[in-house]
Amino acid sequence: MTALEQPPVTAPRVGSAGSASAGSLVPTLPGHWYTDPAIFEAEQERIVEAGWVCVALSADLAEPGAYRTVQVGRESVVVVRGRDRAVRAFFNVCRHRGARLCVEPEGKVRNKLQCPYHAWTYDLAGKLIAAPNLTQMPDVDRIGYGLVPVAVREWIGYVWVCVAPEPPSFEEEVMGAVVTRLGDVESIDHYGIEGLALGRRISYDVAANWKLVVENFMECYHCATIHPELTEVLPEFADGYAAQYYVGHGAEFGEQVRGFTVDGSAGHTRIPGIAEDQDRRYYAITIRPGVFVNLVPDHVIVHRMTPVAADRTLVECDWLFLPEVVRSGVDLDRSVELFHRVNAQDFAACERTQPAMSSRVYAHGGALVPSEHHIAEFHHWVQARLA
Amino acid sequence: MTALEQPPVTAPRVGSAGSASAGSLVPTLPGHWYTDPAIFEAEQERIVEAGWVCVALSADLAEPGAYRTVQVGRESVVVVRGRDRAVRAFFNVCRHRGARLCVEPEGKVRNKLQCPYHAWTYDLAGKLIAAPNLTQMPDVDRIGYGLVPVAVREWIGYVWVCVAPEPPSFEEEVMGAVVTRLGDVESIDHYGIEGLALGRRISYDVAANWKLVVENFMECYHCATIHPELTEVLPEFADGYAAQYYVGHGAEFGEQVRGFTVDGSAGHTRIPGIAEDQDRRYYAITIRPGVFVNLVPDHVIVHRMTPVAADRTLVECDWLFLPEVVRSGVDLDRSVELFHRVNAQDFAACERTQPAMSSRVYAHGGALVPSEHHIAEFHHWVQARLA
Amino acid sequence: MTALEQPPVTAPRVGSAGSASAGSLVPTLPGHWYTDPAIFEAEQERIVEAGWVCVALSADLAEPGAYRTVQVGRESVVVVRGRDRAVRAFFNVCRHRGARLCVEPEGKVRNKLQCPYHAWTYDLAGKLIAAPNLTQMPDVDRIGYGLVPVAVREWIGYVWVCVAPEPPSFEEEVMGAVVTRLGDVESIDHYGIEGLALGRRISYDVAANWKLVVENFMECYHCATIHPELTEVLPEFADGYAAQYYVGHGAEFGEQVRGFTVDGSAGHTRIPGIAEDQDRRYYAITIRPGVFVNLVPDHVIVHRMTPVAADRTLVECDWLFLPEVVRSGVDLDRSVELFHRVNAQDFAACERTQPAMSSRVYAHGGALVPSEHHIAEFHHWVQARLA
Repeated sequence: MTALEQPPVTAPRVGSAGSASAGSLVPTLPGHWYTDPAIFEAEQERIVEAGWVCVALSADLAEPGAYRTVQVGRESVVVVRGRDRAVRAFFNVCRHRGARLCVEPEGKVRNKLQCPYHAWTYDLAGKLIAAPNLTQMPDVDRIGYGLVPVAVREWIGYVWVCVAPEPPSFEEEVMGAVVTRLGDVESIDHYGIEGLALGRRISYDVAANWKLVVENFMECYHCATIHPELTEVLPEFADGYAAQYYVGHGAEFGEQVRGFTVDGSAGHTRIPGIAEDQDRRYYAITIRPGVFVNLVPDHVIVHRMTPVAADRTLVECDWLFLPEVVRSGVDLDRSVELFHRVNAQDFAACERTQPAMSSRVYAHGGALVPSEHHIAEFHHWVQARLA
Repeated sequence: MTALEQPPVTAPRVGSAGSASAGSLVPTLPGHWYTDPAIFEAEQERIVEAGWVCVALSADLAEPGAYRTVQVGRESVVVVRGRDRAVRAFFNVCRHRGARLCVEPEGKVRNKLQCPYHAWTYDLAGKLIAAPNLTQMPDVDRIGYGLVPVAVREWIGYVWVCVAPEPPSFEEEVMGAVVTRLGDVESIDHYGIEGLALGRRISYDVAANWKLVVENFMECYHCATIHPELTEVLPEFADGYAAQYYVGHGAEFGEQVRGFTVDGSAGHTRIPGIAEDQDRRYYAITIRPGVFVNLVPDHVIVHRMTPVAADRTLVECDWLFLPEVVRSGVDLDRSVELFHRVNAQDFAACERTQPAMSSRVYAHGGALVPSEHHIAEFHHWVQARLA
Repeated sequence: MTALEQPPVTAPRVGSAGSASAGSLVPTLPGHWYTDPAIFEAEQERIVEAGWVCVALSADLAEPGAYRTVQVGRESVVVVRGRDRAVRAFFNVCRHRGARLCVEPEGKVRNKLQCPYHAWTYDLAGKLIAAPNLTQMPDVDRIGYGLVPVAVREWIGYVWVCVAPEPPSFEEEVMGAVVTRLGDVESIDHYGIEGLALGRRISYDVAANWKLVVENFMECYHCATIHPELTEVLPEFADGYAAQYYVGHGAEFGEQVRGFTVDGSAGHTRIPGIAEDQDRRYYAITIRPGVFVNLVPDHVIVHRMTPVAADRTLVECDWLFLPEVVRSGVDLDRSVELFHRVNAQDFAACERTQPAMSSRVYAHGGALVPSEHHIAEFHHWVQARLA
């Protein structure tokens, strides 16, 4: 029995490409959706700035007063942990004359954020607590002129923010993506990601539209062509069906494979909470618009994307292991190298696709083969948000 | 008596923020006025290219035939001193096929400007005096096909030009700014700026909208926060009221201060013509849109701004001293260093303000505190010109 | 008898500037035609992508399987020689998800083009011949999903393509330009260009609109001013009349000149087929929009332009000699140096003209002197195509 034959029996497909028959081609988005600056602006406004964005590892903000300056769509946001250990987020804009409160990507303050231009000062809950001559301005409402708050959540060890005035349901938008993919939210809880430790972080600057990066992650039709190491570890990927194609499906390690490593050698200590059927399997989840979570028995890989232009996307990738593994100082290279190569291979493919998006012959888009049909649902999701 | 208490008695405030009460906040321009390329283009057309722009030190064009190639809004202009010693200015565009006549920033010719493409040749009054085969083209009007003239004035030792077809009154626009600030034009005449010599020139490339640079120069609410050296020399600035806040007011040197230098040590020979009440005082004048004049007893500092994009402004700053001071070769560093530091501190503040101008939470702008209320008049002036 | 006096007798002028009298000035295109991105886009669409573009030397694609990746307007095109030795061209866009088939500027394949993303594979006639799981997609039309073809012709040793769905007549557009200039097409056949060999190739990156480069090539009013070496070899050019001004006219070498070289020294073996009246003469042909052919007795110089932005044009220049001359390894420097200097002089002039195109005083354009009147026809041609 091959993995490819088995899943259709046990797992319904994710999404639907409408009435497309099994052997047919389905159209993609038209080319200008990947190049038009106006569409990119609309995506920033109605997708990135309207939804939940994963901006930092909770452990990056471990101590009270620790802050990060992050970009959410076109907005700069300060995320800071209070002395009550709660994480809060604010637009990085002084209410007086608009100067950036924080310009460093990260740092630590004691118990206030002070604008370095005119010294307007806010507590870590955003309230205006001091300013030169403020006592001579009794009309100034210290809450009304406090920092503008941004919605914030911590989940699976990450900080998520939403800059929209009325954030959508975190449970539906973010946790719902896990349910859609894995069938339930408990399946991800088994990995106890919030208890893992950062083993490695690599940043990528990709000269391609963010949607090409998402589409690439969602399908495995390219795996046999560009991912020799990955298909060695997950032989079913050579057949072109991504784990994401089926609800709940995890791609099985090859028989000779001992771990999720670049050469199939043994990995590190298995995460104790995972279920028996999660062992020796790789699961991948796309949390739209910009987070990919990859689950293997001994580690978790989290990609976070930041679209910066119609033709440029930043990707930050974290490899998380059990804390004792990271603390031990053991060599993580073979584990990290596998997906780092996959990333490099994927992003090169995206970059060679981006230039053709403006061609006359791609004006009506390209074609999705049957094993890519679930990507059509992503296209519908994007189009619906911009409608 | 502190300087802060005294001025309201003797000097009316410059401008007016309408019905704003003493302790209230007044709105600034909305954020997009600092980022929108269409507004920037309109400002170039209706402010920079419609008004008088200070483009060169007269001494930069001392000899007949000396020229400078300068940028005025979106236009390149050649400023040249004739053999009759008058300064003239022309659009830097050959009337034949449009080539630039001069591409070097400065140079010297004998008595003509010749286009290096097809050798059309103009005298220093702009008349077409020669071209290949010109004698076979009897219809060509040598005045009509002469260089297009630009209005020019020399004042306080600087060359001012206006590329508008019908220049506004120099007396009202430029000299009027001095009257509005100092109360009369004689107060600046005392410094005899046209007789001073250039001691130092420093150029700055500022990643901020030109209006942020103007606003910064107009207020002193930031002085206590970012200008430690300046407030040491001018203690009243620590209270947040700029000299510009009051008509005719000059900020007084601290009691222990011996000169306008980075460490308060003695400066150089005092300019002989200044009035007694101008000694030991600092005066600042904003000549909109892009000139700042700073007067102290022994030197004059002149800033000239060139907006080049919505988020980029070039600033050239001259330090002028008595000719015998410059000739003597005495060390000018402590004098220059004071305002060079102020410049660097100010421009860093402007650069950290620019990025927030596009934030959703700055869409309606920020707030002016009472000591910044006079900036509102500058905003009204800009808006009226673009209306 | 000077060359200038003679031609009007024997040769009608190329084109016509309407009712312009001999000594009058004629207007050029308005300045914004050289700067407006919207006009540039329209030119790419209605001129470059609508006509025939010379993209490669046939000898660059000598062997079966040899390919070149070339830019035609906004499109990337693969030109490849088949095993049947015919040259074919295709849009460089995989029909599946749009990845570039070829990213290298040149290369060689055996008998197929394979997309490196998902391995869709096409034969050298463009037919889809293989893809992963293709046998499970019986509905896929292998011709319909073949590479999109581009019209192609080989002529005078060069490959010409047209990306328009319905290409205009090659005979009228390309060969017709030769007839208009030389009076007949046989005059160029005498040079046997398809049998010559590449002696030198130099690429230039010019910061000017492509039309300035064309206009510059079409007139010789600038020759006396900027081309001292060229006017030494072709003395009549000092009078300002380009060879292109008259139908069939070739500019005569100076009496002391022994060859078309930078110092007038002897050139190389004369091309045997040229007519007697083609000896000791220089002919120039503009094949709109982007090819210049220069004919001299012992070599041919071909310029090919690629407009890349309103203010940027790439030019590739080939020097072609008899194969035995190139094979002999003889020093070609003095021959190449002459026109290389001319190119550098011309492109510097274009670059100093481009900036003034946006000036207010060039809004209605400049003036063409009588010896430039034939350029007006080029302007009408451009305007008609964009109308």
